[in-house]
Amino acid sequence: MSQLVAQAFYGSFFHTPVYGSFQYLHNALIEVNGAGYIYRVVEEDDPQQPELLRSYRESGILTELGEDRCGLPGFVDIHVHAPQWPQAGLALDEPLYLWLDQRTFPLESKFADLEFAERVYSDLVSQLLARGSTTTVYLGSAHLDSSLLLAQICADKGQRALVGKTVMDDPVANHDYYRDASPAQAVKDTETLIWEVEAIGRGSAQGVWPVITPRFIPSCTDEVLKGLGDLAETTGAYVQTHCNEGQWEHDVVLERFGKTDPYALRDFGLLRKHSIMAHCPYLTEEEGEMFAELGVAVAHCPMANSYFSSAVAPIQRFRSQGINVGLGTDISGGYSPSMYENIRQAVLVSRLLETGVNAQLPPERRGGLGEGTRLSLVESFWLATAGGAEALGLPLATFQPGRAFDLQVIDVKRPDSDLTGFGVFDSPEDQLARILYLSTPDNIRKVYAQGKLVCDKDARG
Amino acid sequence: MSQLVAQAFYGSFFHTPVYGSFQYLHNALIEVNGAGYIYRVVEEDDPQQPELLRSYRESGILTELGEDRCGLPGFVDIHVHAPQWPQAGLALDEPLYLWLDQRTFPLESKFADLEFAERVYSDLVSQLLARGSTTTVYLGSAHLDSSLLLAQICADKGQRALVGKTVMDDPVANHDYYRDASPAQAVKDTETLIWEVEAIGRGSAQGVWPVITPRFIPSCTDEVLKGLGDLAETTGAYVQTHCNEGQWEHDVVLERFGKTDPYALRDFGLLRKHSIMAHCPYLTEEEGEMFAELGVAVAHCPMANSYFSSAVAPIQRFRSQGINVGLGTDISGGYSPSMYENIRQAVLVSRLLETGVNAQLPPERRGGLGEGTRLSLVESFWLATAGGAEALGLPLATFQPGRAFDLQVIDVKRPDSDLTGFGVFDSPEDQLARILYLSTPDNIRKVYAQGKLVCDKDARG
Repeated sequence: MSQLVAQAFYGSFFHTPVYGSFQYLHNALIEVNGAGYIYRVVEEDDPQQPELLRSYRESGILTELGEDRCGLPGFVDIHVHAPQWPQAGLALDEPLYLWLDQRTFPLESKFADLEFAERVYSDLVSQLLARGSTTTVYLGSAHLDSSLLLAQICADKGQRALVGKTVMDDPVANHDYYRDASPAQAVKDTETLIWEVEAIGRGSAQGVWPVITPRFIPSCTDEVLKGLGDLAETTGAYVQTHCNEGQWEHDVVLERFGKTDPYALRDFGLLRKHSIMAHCPYLTEEEGEMFAELGVAVAHCPMANSYFSSAVAPIQRFRSQGINVGLGTDISGGYSPSMYENIRQAVLVSRLLETGVNAQLPPERRGGLGEGTRLSLVESFWLATAGGAEALGLPLATFQPGRAFDLQVIDVKRPDSDLTGFGVFDSPEDQLARILYLSTPDNIRKVYAQGKLVCDKDARG
Repeated sequence: MSQLVAQAFYGSFFHTPVYGSFQYLHNALIEVNGAGYIYRVVEEDDPQQPELLRSYRESGILTELGEDRCGLPGFVDIHVHAPQWPQAGLALDEPLYLWLDQRTFPLESKFADLEFAERVYSDLVSQLLARGSTTTVYLGSAHLDSSLLLAQICADKGQRALVGKTVMDDPVANHDYYRDASPAQAVKDTETLIWEVEAIGRGSAQGVWPVITPRFIPSCTDEVLKGLGDLAETTGAYVQTHCNEGQWEHDVVLERFGKTDPYALRDFGLLRKHSIMAHCPYLTEEEGEMFAELGVAVAHCPMANSYFSSAVAPIQRFRSQGINVGLGTDISGGYSPSMYENIRQAVLVSRLLETGVNAQLPPERRGGLGEGTRLSLVESFWLATAGGAEALGLPLATFQPGRAFDLQVIDVKRPDSDLTGFGVFDSPEDQLARILYLSTPDNIRKVYAQGKLVCDKDARG
């Protein structure tokens, strides 16, 4: 028994250390150090396990998941518009420009009010934790103060987070009531955000990081894009933005710069290792190669693909090109705060990307990408966990030594959601599939981030 | 106060009497007669309302939905493979023939065991009620006895149901361990089912009806198809089957009969008023006209479209052709028992059918059907309620006089799912959108079918 072990967890766990397959750790003992990192995984067949279990139980540091329960890694959601939480699920039948003008911008502008921001952000962070998302990449509003408040709320509630203040400075492209005062002010605010969020992060067990966050090229002046690119270079901070999301964006950027969105972003210095580019269904093979070379990551948001992209991002092609890909709920371009619903959706849309959609055309003219396009359920689970960790370059989301210990405890026997399966089809593969496809938020009973209990539904009685 | 009123419900209700829009009944009083049908809806501005409320409260027949609660009609799920419930969410990455051969058929064959059938069917009916589905159209296994058991369980638990015994008699197309003994036996069993289920229905408050259920043409001999068509003619019973689901089925039927699936079914006498044809993405305009003329209904199963159809059914075209369309979960060609998840999915896939999926092609070559294709959220809600009622020709699923009173009571303020919206965007339209897109099973607190309380989560404490 090592002195390095501060806590130990005993039970069965599912995770995906390698893309395309999963590993089932049956009756495993996971040792966690004082900083919340996994020290060692002691498997069922390890002769030391019984003695270790006895000793951890005696010293009171053992948590047993319990009957009918198992563990999954915490999810990594790499694209969330925090101030759009009150808009989730609303007006998705509207065209994008109305959705933005009548809903999103008036709503985001309210986050000048810190009391309102506190109410919304507290609820959002709690809801995401309650759904198993222990790491989230946030775009804040255009306000510095409320974005700092969001970072502090994440730190207080124990959610690992990347937090950005959205930059949108172009007076032609943005409403006067909701935009940065000037390019210089936007860069200055972003710089302040970087220092302040880093300070908040130092006080957080799970970690909070700043992200440089131009909304997308069409909202930004050349001057601010250059300023933010320079800031990325000097500070080494994360960068996130939207890239190649839809036809309109694609065409507008091409006309403005004579080059496409990804190259324009690159030339402003915004494509760097672990930069997070949301959506990207329009990314060409050549642009994808450039992403892979630079270590840029794609945030795949399958719900928003259907609503706003008129297309589905070809994730298997991105993966085979060596691009890092994670999954994002895209609240509120996607309606659901649940990564489970997004894992399901990533599978579903990949099937339609494979085949096309219109059965009145002959199969070869349906526009599908064909074999090799679909995502399996386990690959989609990987995107929501290890893929997100890889995108961010953080040691997360699998149960392996050296990784942060983030855990969702799943109860497969809840009154309205019994996932035990009547004694048929009970291989680990099927158990995992039932959890991923059929679980409801109620099946998630406890959530740990960096070894700390951050959500406990059992305690509600 | 009418003597005809046995119960009254006071609160706010959403429903869709007309396709394409919803109605919000704010602080309405719904009077229900002793047989569970709506007698009258007394709206807020009716001068009689206060006196009626007082009187119903006094006589103890008033149910008030309560603070932070509102009502939706019970859902009508018109396509569920009851014996596939233990398979929900499993092996959906497999090709259809393996999914059927390694999973579905061995599983369905277990329903010869009535003890197993009782366990699965009891859970399924309870889970569907707990998710607000007060009416369900079931395909049973190929066994008569377990299908009768399913009908009895529905009657006992208070779920309105149509129940069929699946017919699959062709010895070439089916495994010996799981098929009808002969065409004659299959027809005889179906006839028995009709009489027995009608008897069970007479003892049920909500109603249980038999359905003639050939699995689909490729599993059936000509003889059985003709025998079932004749039975439909002589008994007037409902008919359901799969129609035009995928390319393989389409091609096999065309080769066998020199005509497509819908015409073959028609010529066997299986397309009648309120016959329910599942899937139909391959239905041509001409075939659609024939459906409309005959009053045949389509069960739209948006999840199964992605997994097994390589295409999306064009629902707006069907509707504009005058075809009745309802929504089906298609357990387990779809994974989810929740009509909410299927309402969402119907919207999402309709967006991709509109645009196509592959952004590397020019928009006009993406194979999308273009403008007029997408389903709005409210249209999709209509499909799940009034659309299903219309498909079945039953007076259900809206809060109108003469309709059965089926109600889901939604609590918008649950610990992990607060749908109140922070005081912004709180029009009835937005409230309804939040419920449809963001609710979890936990938000559904009580379910009534035909005026009877059939699920009460509040009572659990």
